[in-house]
Order: sequence, then C-alpha cells, then structure tokens
Amino acid sequence: MPAPPEFLQFIDDNANAFIQRLGEAVAIPSISGDATHRADVVKMAEWLNTHLQAVGVTTQLVDLGKHVMDGQELSLPPAILGKIGEDKSKKTVLVYGHFDVQPAEKSDGWDTDPFTLSIHPDGRLIGRGSSDDKGPVLGWLNVLQYHHAHGLPLPVNMRFCFEGMEESGSEGLDDLVRKEAKGWFKDVDCVCISDNYWLNTRTPALTYGLRGLTYIKATVSGPARDLHSGVFGRTVHEPMTDLVLLMSKLVDAQGKILIPGIDEMVDAASEDEKAIYEALDYSIADIEQSAGASIALSANKVDVLMGRMRYPSLSLHGIEGAFHGAGAKTVIPAKVAGKFSIRLVPPQTPALVDPLVIAYLEAEFAKLNSKNTLTVESLHGGKPWVEDVNHWNYEAAKVATKAVYGQDPDLTREGGSIPVTLTFAESLGVNVLLLPMGRGDDGAHSTNEKLDRSNFIQGTKLLGTYLYEIAAIEGKK
Amino acid sequence: MPAPPEFLQFIDDNANAFIQRLGEAVAIPSISGDATHRADVVKMAEWLNTHLQAVGVTTQLVDLGKHVMDGQELSLPPAILGKIGEDKSKKTVLVYGHFDVQPAEKSDGWDTDPFTLSIHPDGRLIGRGSSDDKGPVLGWLNVLQYHHAHGLPLPVNMRFCFEGMEESGSEGLDDLVRKEAKGWFKDVDCVCISDNYWLNTRTPALTYGLRGLTYIKATVSGPARDLHSGVFGRTVHEPMTDLVLLMSKLVDAQGKILIPGIDEMVDAASEDEKAIYEALDYSIADIEQSAGASIALSANKVDVLMGRMRYPSLSLHGIEGAFHGAGAKTVIPAKVAGKFSIRLVPPQTPALVDPLVIAYLEAEFAKLNSKNTLTVESLHGGKPWVEDVNHWNYEAAKVATKAVYGQDPDLTREGGSIPVTLTFAESLGVNVLLLPMGRGDDGAHSTNEKLDRSNFIQGTKLLGTYLYEIAAIEGKK
Ligand SMILES: [Zn+2]
Ligand SMILES: [Zn+2]
Ligand SMILES: [Zn+2]
Ligand SMILES: [Zn+2]
Repeated sequence: MPAPPEFLQFIDDNANAFIQRLGEAVAIPSISGDATHRADVVKMAEWLNTHLQAVGVTTQLVDLGKHVMDGQELSLPPAILGKIGEDKSKKTVLVYGHFDVQPAEKSDGWDTDPFTLSIHPDGRLIGRGSSDDKGPVLGWLNVLQYHHAHGLPLPVNMRFCFEGMEESGSEGLDDLVRKEAKGWFKDVDCVCISDNYWLNTRTPALTYGLRGLTYIKATVSGPARDLHSGVFGRTVHEPMTDLVLLMSKLVDAQGKILIPGIDEMVDAASEDEKAIYEALDYSIADIEQSAGASIALSANKVDVLMGRMRYPSLSLHGIEGAFHGAGAKTVIPAKVAGKFSIRLVPPQTPALVDPLVIAYLEAEFAKLNSKNTLTVESLHGGKPWVEDVNHWNYEAAKVATKAVYGQDPDLTREGGSIPVTLTFAESLGVNVLLLPMGRGDDGAHSTNEKLDRSNFIQGTKLLGTYLYEIAAIEGKK
Repeated sequence: MPAPPEFLQFIDDNANAFIQRLGEAVAIPSISGDATHRADVVKMAEWLNTHLQAVGVTTQLVDLGKHVMDGQELSLPPAILGKIGEDKSKKTVLVYGHFDVQPAEKSDGWDTDPFTLSIHPDGRLIGRGSSDDKGPVLGWLNVLQYHHAHGLPLPVNMRFCFEGMEESGSEGLDDLVRKEAKGWFKDVDCVCISDNYWLNTRTPALTYGLRGLTYIKATVSGPARDLHSGVFGRTVHEPMTDLVLLMSKLVDAQGKILIPGIDEMVDAASEDEKAIYEALDYSIADIEQSAGASIALSANKVDVLMGRMRYPSLSLHGIEGAFHGAGAKTVIPAKVAGKFSIRLVPPQTPALVDPLVIAYLEAEFAKLNSKNTLTVESLHGGKPWVEDVNHWNYEAAKVATKAVYGQDPDLTREGGSIPVTLTFAESLGVNVLLLPMGRGDDGAHSTNEKLDRSNFIQGTKLLGTYLYEIAAIEGKK
C-alpha cells in the first residue's frame, strides 16, 4: 500500500500554501527560554491546537504547572495531546514535536528578521524554528490536511504529543509521558520523532542511536583563600597544579579515554558494522567543513564517524574558579573545579561509568602526594539509546525514503542526545524512530536557521508515505 | 656614632603626636587606582610636601603628565623630590616611599572606617595606608622633625623620592628616576626603601632579594568556532585536551619545574646559605597559618623557605577561553589560552628563560601530533634582584636593628617583586636596602590593615639610628 499518487500531487499543488502557513508559525516568536516571550509560546500552542482541530484531530491542552525561570515563577506553556483514529485493525503511531524555539535577534548576525520567514531564491526558507521544529510539525499538519480535505481515513491511528519547552529542558514532559503511557498513549505501537537532521545536505537519513552523557566536576581545594604566587609559589601545594595533572590523565591527544574500563566497555565494531559507516554519505571533508578547520582525528572516515557515533568521547570543558580573564593575574586560586563530560554508548550508563571515573581520579590524586583535597561529583547524566533498525518502524521509513527520494537513507547515530527519545522508549516500551526532515547545515540553533523548500515538501511526502508503508507491513502489530 | 639618646627620647616623648599625624595622613583617601579619588592623591601629595618643607626639606613637585584609566584621561599625581644636606663629607642616602594607597571600603569587611585611624588597645593602628606606606613615610618625617626642632644637622645628606602611583603600576616613575639619576639623585650613595614587611610578627628584617617574573600565555586554537561535544567529541582534535596536556608538563605536584634548564640554571644552596634560612625566625606553621591550610610542600623549613626565596617557582593561574562558569556546559572551546608565570631568581632573566619555555612547549606540542595550532607569548616580565648584604648600607642597618630592637634582623628574600627596587638599583648603580617597618601580618592590601604602635615608634628610631650608623662607617663612601 504505497501512498496514493493523489496525496503526493496534493502536497506539490499546495506547496506555496504550506510555506505560507510555515511563515505564520515562524512569525510567532515562541522562545521558551525567555520569560518575556512566554505568552508567545502559549499563543503558538493555541495556533497549533486550532490547526490540529481543523484537520480532524481531537486535542487536549495539558497544563504542566509552574516553574521558576530567571528568578520569576512562570506558568509552563501547555502541552498538546492529539488523537485521530480508533480503528483496532490499524497500527497506532505516536508523533512527537515541539513548537517552541531558540532565542534569535537580528543583531546576533541574521541577514533577515528571524521571525519573518524569508524565502530565498535558492529554495531556503529562512527563519527561527523553520527547521527546529516548526517545519516538521507542520509537515504532519500538511499530511493530515490532505486526508481531511478528501474525507479519507488515515492508514494508521495517530497520537500526537507536542510540547513548548523542548529548548528549555522539556520541563514537565517526562511526567506527562509516564502518566499517559497507560492513558492517552496506551495503544501506541511505535513512535516517530522528527527533530534532528541529515548527516549531510544530500542524503535522507534515519537515526537509530544517540549517545548518553555523564558530566563530571572534580574540585581541588587547599588554601583558605587565593594566594599570591610571589609569596606562596613553590611553598604550598597549588590546587591548579594538582587539577591540571589530574585532567591530563583523562584523555589523550588522539581522543582515547585513559580512564581504565571506559573504552574497554564497548565492543569493537564488526566488519559488518564498519560497512554501515563506510556506506554513509559523509566524508572527512564534511566534518572538517562543519568544524571550520582541518582537525579531524583521523584520515579514515570510518574511524572518525565511529568516534562520533558508536564510541564514547571525553571532552574537557573548562575550569571553574581559576583566572579566566584577559591579561596577566598572578593568583594561586584557592579552589578550582575541572569540568568534563563523557558521551556514553551502550552498554555504558552513568551508573556504570561514574564509579570508574571517581575511583580513577581518586587513585591518580593519591599518587600526587598532595595535601590538597579532591572531591568528585557527577552534575548530571543520561543513558545512551540505540534502536533496532530491523523493526517494521524502520523498514517502513526505509521504503518510504526510497519511494520519495529515490535513494536509500543513511542509517545514522548521533553523538549528542535528544532526551525525550529515551523518555518515550522507556515509558512506552515501543520502537522509536528518529526521522529527520532537515539537512545537516540547517543551523538549528544558529543564525539564519533555514529549512530547504524541497526538504519541507518532499519531507511532508515522506511523513505521509511512511504512514502508508507502516500500514502496508502485514501482521506485525 | 650611635644615635643620640636625645633622639630616641624625643621619639618616645612625641609618640602620641606622631600617631595623631599618621591619623591625618590616613584620613586622606589617596587611592591611586580609583579615578574618583585622584584629587585625594593630589591632596596627599600637598600634605606631605607641606610637612617635608616644615622640617627643612627642599622639595619639588614633579608633574608626571597624563594617563588613561577606566577610559578617562587623568593627570597623574605629582611625585615629590626632596633634598636636605649638601655636605660633601657626608654620605647621601636616597629614601623612597609612596603616599597612595589601595582601595578600601567598610563594606569589604573592615571592622572600622578604613580612613579613620583606629587605635586599638592592643597597640594596633588600624587604617588604610597605616603600614603601606604612610607609616614608613611618616617615620622619616618624625626623624627629620627631631633634627629640625633642635637645629641639628642630619648625620647624612638625604634625598627623597615619594610617588602617588605605586599601587597602580608606578606610572611615570621609571622615567623620572632615570632622568634624575644624573640630576636630583647624582650624589646618592645608597638607597633605602621601607615598603615591605618582616617575615613574621616577632623579628625585624632586612630584605636583600626579590624574585623576578615571566608571565606566559600559551594559546591552542583549532576549530573556527566553539563546537558541540556531542557532535564533535572523538571526531576532532580538541584545543582544551592539547592545552591541558601541555600545562601538565610544566610543574609537578611537588613544585619542581619540568621545563629543562630552568631549575638547573640556579646553583644549589651551600651549607652556609642554608644556615641563613635555618636561622630565620619563621616556621612551617607560620606559612601554613598565612595560607590558611596545612599544605606546605615540605616539612623541612629550610626547603620551604628556599622554595619561596631562592628558587624559581611556576604557578598555573588559569585558562582564558574555556568554560569557567557554574553549571554544566558541554562546549568544546575553539581557542583556549593557558596562563602561567615563573618567578625568577638570579641568574635567571626573562630573556634567558623565555626561549627555553617556548622551545619546550613547542617540542611537547609536536609530540601530541595534534592538528591544532599553538602560539606562545610572554605577556610581561621583570628581572630578579639580589643585593650584597655585606655592603655598609646593610651593615649599618644590622647594627641599627640590634641597637633598637636588641636582636639581629632576619635577612630575607621575598618571593614577589617590588619593581621600583630594580629601577633604583639599575638607574643609580648603588646599593639598595629594603628596610621594612611593619610586621608580616599587617595585611597591606587587605581589610583591617594595621601598623603596630611599637613598629611605628621603634621603626622611627630604627630609621634614624640607621642614618647615624651609616655616618659612623668610616671612609666607605
Ligand atoms: Zn528541536
Ligand atoms: Zn532545538
Ligand atoms: Zn607599598
Ligand atoms: Zn601596596
């Protein structure tokens, strides 16, 4: 059951209207991280709610309570739960998206007003939220509109969960998903999240893995106050000396993690798995272009891609408490805290990794014979996520991608995290697919964020076709 | 020719008046580093000039021009040059001091108003500038007053150089001293500077050495912009990893400098020299008390004191460009600069040491096989200074100390620097003595700065007696 040709034609015919509607959504500056824009996030929720109802979705605005931001208590914007279809013979797909956006000001370096969708002759639809995540959310609206306009039932039952706090820690969402697992989401068979990006600018992708994280703070303290290096240099144990020596024991210049047991926890890649990375349409040049310099750790594409996607990484972020300004201050800081994080991959979890990190730092500190004091703490963490790409949820997306784009998708894992993914996977116990609409250069959190017209229109076709391909897979409910 | 008993009696008899005069000086908030107090520094110059003239000193207020501070152009406070005595048969002693002070506000934690001299029952004279450096400057006024009041000639010719910018980099002073080397200062036989402190609270000291400094900034850059550690971790060479590895190669946890050739440049101490440190009235407990923690590098007093006074030290101050705030930011900083300084001792100079540091950092960086870029620069530097303690200038001060305090002075070297010392030594080519008036716990730049009454009064006697002992040393002009 491929998508009906009429559906594909409808999307093409209405492309300009869809883009105009995206412009309406972009024009609402729904910045969740800025208290002065909270009313705009609520306005955006109402706009989306109205549009969902107009295409036949039963909705509920959920009050998520209050929170404190910038010292003031604010009401959280409502989440939107949506439902369409109750046919027991069909699979039920839960779609997640978010309608809030990152901050943006023209003065940040935007070429045009960030909250006016600017349609560039080369096809770029430029505006804050165009790609992250209003474009994908409106892609679903476009799909629904076809079926509603033609009085056609959808090939699957659908459930929706849209939030307005994703860019500010998804406050309230975890509780909502857990609570509704046996309520609003009780018949859900799979989840689809369209909130990430292709690896490159050329090849559609399905994303099946995300790294987890543990963020460590190692604090060395000694003197009761900052000391003058003239008076105390070579007289006392200096916390900065100890801390830098400790931090130098964590990772080598080639990215290898030196904490025993961390790298070793991860199996080496099989030749089959390496073939997946070899097949990805991504090069060292792509990575170096996005870093802005020729600094890849290896000339071997597979090694570099596996470094991002399937191995842990350790990055040193900085030091709190040390001199950090311009100029030349001769202080011996009394208390310094090194900050670093480890990106985790299965089977690593913060619970497994943190004790190794702490024990190692304490053992290395003991070797220093310093009279200073070390304390190590984990500031936060999250588990990694890897999904089964042979599940029918992924099979449907692969077939749909081939049908719409004429090419097989890259199967990617991302180096960062999208915490809601794990929330849905763990709370609902079903397969989760990340199905990106935008390209790797969309600049989601940057200036001049854009979604390409073809990604919006073909991406809409992909979302619809994916639903039909899910329905086409027999008996695998 | 010891000091006349009448002189010592006069100082005791007039102690309360001297303290009252110190109170007048403290009441003028001559903060050189605060533009809003610039007029007070000028007022203090005029106050001191008037008092010098009143005791027979010929003076000249020298306009040092303008400078820019906090974005505004300001007139520098005048320096005061003074002259008394032209007797070719007498030695000529140049005295330096400064009449500006560090900032101070009650709200910083002072128990009393910092600009009202508070006379504590235990003898402490508490107020900003009491010890640094108005007390010592007024000590000279007290000596001069005795001779003026009794119509007695001084045992030596005197020249004075008082400045109002010492706490703000001594702007304009170097040029003045160099210019007057063959002018106002042309007959000077030795210099006495009273602007530092005893090692402890018990034993008078003469200071004959100061460490120099070279301040190094090592910058590692790579990516064109900060990167997300999820996306780029284990994919590119991270500047922070490289920099921390470099910084870890500079100094070990016991304070030993790891840059080849630096520690080696300094001769080991002879048993005779060690005996000097052994003799100092200073203990590990004193050092740990002032650091506020039991973190001395050694339990051996001689090692710790030599670490401060006669060996170089290397302190890591911090990193510019890395994450330094509270919380948990997962950035890979694009460009990070490590800041460290090396305190230098003879024969080290920045010109000798900097090339070793730069070559070593570059060699260690090359070993990392990183594709990032390293640049190393020296931000500023100064030579160390060590004086001949067997010169008559020191001999006179030793005899005077024994006469006034009944004990031999500690012969100390300081770990920090007092840049004007080197200016006088190099410009005039004569012996320079640092003759501290205050105690090690005076808190020169801290809250509740104080000078003990006995240090002010006995210290005044010491200054006068020192002049008589200089005169008593025959033929060594
Ligand atoms: Zn997003
Ligand atoms: Zn986002
Ligand atoms: Zn001073
Ligand atoms: Zn000072």
